[in-house]
Amino acid sequence: MKEKIAVYAGTFDPVTNGHLDVIERGSRLFDKLYVTIFINPKKHTLFTVEERVDMLKEATKHLENVVIDYSDDLAVSYAKSVHANALLRGLRATVDFEYELQLASSNHYLDDSIEMIFLMSKPKHSFISSSTVKEIVSHNHSVKGLVPNYVENALYKKINTDEL
Amino acid sequence: MKEKIAVYAGTFDPVTNGHLDVIERGSRLFDKLYVTIFINPKKHTLFTVEERVDMLKEATKHLENVVIDYSDDLAVSYAKSVHANALLRGLRATVDFEYELQLASSNHYLDDSIEMIFLMSKPKHSFISSSTVKEIVSHNHSVKGLVPNYVENALYKKINTDEL
Amino acid sequence: MKEKIAVYAGTFDPVTNGHLDVIERGSRLFDKLYVTIFINPKKHTLFTVEERVDMLKEATKHLENVVIDYSDDLAVSYAKSVHANALLRGLRATVDFEYELQLASSNHYLDDSIEMIFLMSKPKHSFISSSTVKEIVSHNHSVKGLVPNYVENALYKKINTDEL
Amino acid sequence: MKEKIAVYAGTFDPVTNGHLDVIERGSRLFDKLYVTIFINPKKHTLFTVEERVDMLKEATKHLENVVIDYSDDLAVSYAKSVHANALLRGLRATVDFEYELQLASSNHYLDDSIEMIFLMSKPKHSFISSSTVKEIVSHNHSVKGLVPNYVENALYKKINTDEL
Amino acid sequence: MKEKIAVYAGTFDPVTNGHLDVIERGSRLFDKLYVTIFINPKKHTLFTVEERVDMLKEATKHLENVVIDYSDDLAVSYAKSVHANALLRGLRATVDFEYELQLASSNHYLDDSIEMIFLMSKPKHSFISSSTVKEIVSHNHSVKGLVPNYVENALYKKINTDEL
Amino acid sequence: MKEKIAVYAGTFDPVTNGHLDVIERGSRLFDKLYVTIFINPKKHTLFTVEERVDMLKEATKHLENVVIDYSDDLAVSYAKSVHANALLRGLRATVDFEYELQLASSNHYLDDSIEMIFLMSKPKHSFISSSTVKEIVSHNHSVKGLVPNYVENALYKKINTDEL
Repeated sequence: MKEKIAVYAGTFDPVTNGHLDVIERGSRLFDKLYVTIFINPKKHTLFTVEERVDMLKEATKHLENVVIDYSDDLAVSYAKSVHANALLRGLRATVDFEYELQLASSNHYLDDSIEMIFLMSKPKHSFISSSTVKEIVSHNHSVKGLVPNYVENALYKKINTDEL
Repeated sequence: MKEKIAVYAGTFDPVTNGHLDVIERGSRLFDKLYVTIFINPKKHTLFTVEERVDMLKEATKHLENVVIDYSDDLAVSYAKSVHANALLRGLRATVDFEYELQLASSNHYLDDSIEMIFLMSKPKHSFISSSTVKEIVSHNHSVKGLVPNYVENALYKKINTDEL
Repeated sequence: MKEKIAVYAGTFDPVTNGHLDVIERGSRLFDKLYVTIFINPKKHTLFTVEERVDMLKEATKHLENVVIDYSDDLAVSYAKSVHANALLRGLRATVDFEYELQLASSNHYLDDSIEMIFLMSKPKHSFISSSTVKEIVSHNHSVKGLVPNYVENALYKKINTDEL
Repeated sequence: MKEKIAVYAGTFDPVTNGHLDVIERGSRLFDKLYVTIFINPKKHTLFTVEERVDMLKEATKHLENVVIDYSDDLAVSYAKSVHANALLRGLRATVDFEYELQLASSNHYLDDSIEMIFLMSKPKHSFISSSTVKEIVSHNHSVKGLVPNYVENALYKKINTDEL
Repeated sequence: MKEKIAVYAGTFDPVTNGHLDVIERGSRLFDKLYVTIFINPKKHTLFTVEERVDMLKEATKHLENVVIDYSDDLAVSYAKSVHANALLRGLRATVDFEYELQLASSNHYLDDSIEMIFLMSKPKHSFISSSTVKEIVSHNHSVKGLVPNYVENALYKKINTDEL
Repeated sequence: MKEKIAVYAGTFDPVTNGHLDVIERGSRLFDKLYVTIFINPKKHTLFTVEERVDMLKEATKHLENVVIDYSDDLAVSYAKSVHANALLRGLRATVDFEYELQLASSNHYLDDSIEMIFLMSKPKHSFISSSTVKEIVSHNHSVKGLVPNYVENALYKKINTDEL
């Protein structure tokens, strides 16, 4: 049997419990799962790539077949370079679906040997996004249960010193 | 590495090229793929279970890791019984998405060890459904390119003798 | 300049002010507009084909370039037979959109010389459908403003004598 | 202050925990809430009106301002007859939304003094429907957590004796 | 009976007839309705908070139980501070629905004693938004019927002196 | 017969094969089709208006009844000025649909003598957008089949000298 390798790509600014749910479920579906920060120089982020890598490593240290990485390539090219045959994505809502459908077609055009496969978000995670989490913290409210504890702490530190 | 087994469930009345695309892509993502006709006694079908099994076997004979089967159980119970950890689904449109999201939540309630995973239909397959195909044949138009040739022939025979 | 001919297909059981809005707008966009009742023997209707033809003729008698007709063919085949190059459709909601997108792809497969073109329903007509109208009348409420007066009268007569 | 009265209309065949969530939240928003079974003679139900009334009464006995009732009128006419100025609805998904938007427009046409107001289903309830529950029980699976206990028992009894 | 208080939050840059429709309908559903401008320092607005307060006061002076206010807090915290138990929202389209569903889940996480309740926009208001109105005025077209007269005047003045 | 004239408005930064498909189909539906670049000074574009006009002229030189133009007016005003009675639009997805429905209502308010009419994108074009194309080229991948050859060349030149 050929090894089944997938890539879960994102900005992870910061990683949320919604992302972690997809990562844990994905790690059971594949022999190896790359969780890869894609860098878009035009997009401002709160955390540096290094900080985001560290938070992802901490959050996934119990998952042996998960590898944390980052890239500035197109997702399909990156996937090919790590011998993955699938891009894993979480789906939350109809609007996500539309975007993902366009992305899937566009990726299929770029390289039809890489499949995009989708997991539905669990209902309780369906409202969590990195930007919601940052918005809540900027109003000095707790995000317990939405992100791991050390991410919550990192958010509070950043938001006292940085502009959100 | 644990074997990765998935189930692709449907009515397949009859199998279309859209189904076959999902089956071929799924057979590359998993070590073993069950393609399983789910029997709903309340739903009238054009083809018998045996006829549908035969058409699926013919259509997938080039795929070594695909097994054709049928069941009248709930999909998650069937999946468990064949040691699968995933239900594979094709997604065509927003309306599909809504239905599938409800189904995924409902399956997760029934057995959270079985994942539902989704592939987006390729654009050129996005309009093909078993009922569209039957509708077109009932007006004596060709469905070449929408279903395999022997399915097209079977459709013409049925529709000359049966009520659609 | 080649004559621009379109077909507006439907069940029209009965014609509503929403249909009439599409017909009037369509009659200004094309040189000739066929308004054609498509007969589906599997679908029960309240009014006979003849009654529906009569109501449509009455409703469109002020529109010189509109022709009322009926057919049991596929819409694209019918369109070809009357030398139309377009099927006109009204769009009311996202759910309509999904269905129409599938239909457009399927028609394009059947005959790519026939275009489907769409008008958005005016907001005030977006909730009117033949079944809503029948439902309201069956509860003895007025449908003034939703259908022409003679259609309202016909509905009351039918619903006193027939089962809806 | 004028008393604020609302109606929550449905088939409740049977009542689910999703319905009960809307009822409890609605009972806090209004001074009085009618929970009313609407009878559609064309729609087959598993439980009789009397059985459904009994299950709703049992399920809401802790809510002092909730009244259980049934009707075969249009919802807006019923609302007027009990001096309600609002129809309460639960929204689960985009497809629900489309339907409800049409219904709201149609009700507004019938009587614009009655408002339709909406609550979003909690994510964990978003997949529960009466038909899902009946489907699961018909396959001899538990629906614990989806309906109250006595409803689960009633479902098992019915499904041993009746055809679903 | 406990007083029923709701908050209708928005940017109101400027208030439109669509907003006013929600405010009027909401003022009939609750004993007291706060219409509250939420200030987002990262979002550029055409009108100052003071100007927006003034326009809202003028537009709602006939509604005795409406209070105009502004805040830079999270909506649920503000609601709690004015003893409201509901956040009122207008829904226009499927895309609104998706966003509102996420917001409702997120607010429920923050404080589950505050309900979000929704009214569907009337069809004739469903296309009006503050940005549409500003776009139309910037092309020197009239927005009569989309906003109150004094708002139209204020828009013309601003757009002659400010950059939109 | 009155001449049937339509306007197809867009940014065309740059024109894609998806646009060209709409233009070719539109040129068969109308006696004359204006393809008009609408200039929005607040929106940064990669290509100048002149460059976009040139690419559109090159791409449509085989279509005798197509005229390339540009404007900074509202689309309905422009349409009136060229004696068009229709604005032609391509629809790709539900999200497009929502936006277009609002735009249609808003245009109908501005001038109800101008119709908006819609064609569904062919499935194979449904993922192509000007921004997808620019994104792919910025990662040094080919966009063959998504845009005409001379547009692909122009994109490579721009992206070597300009900031995307």
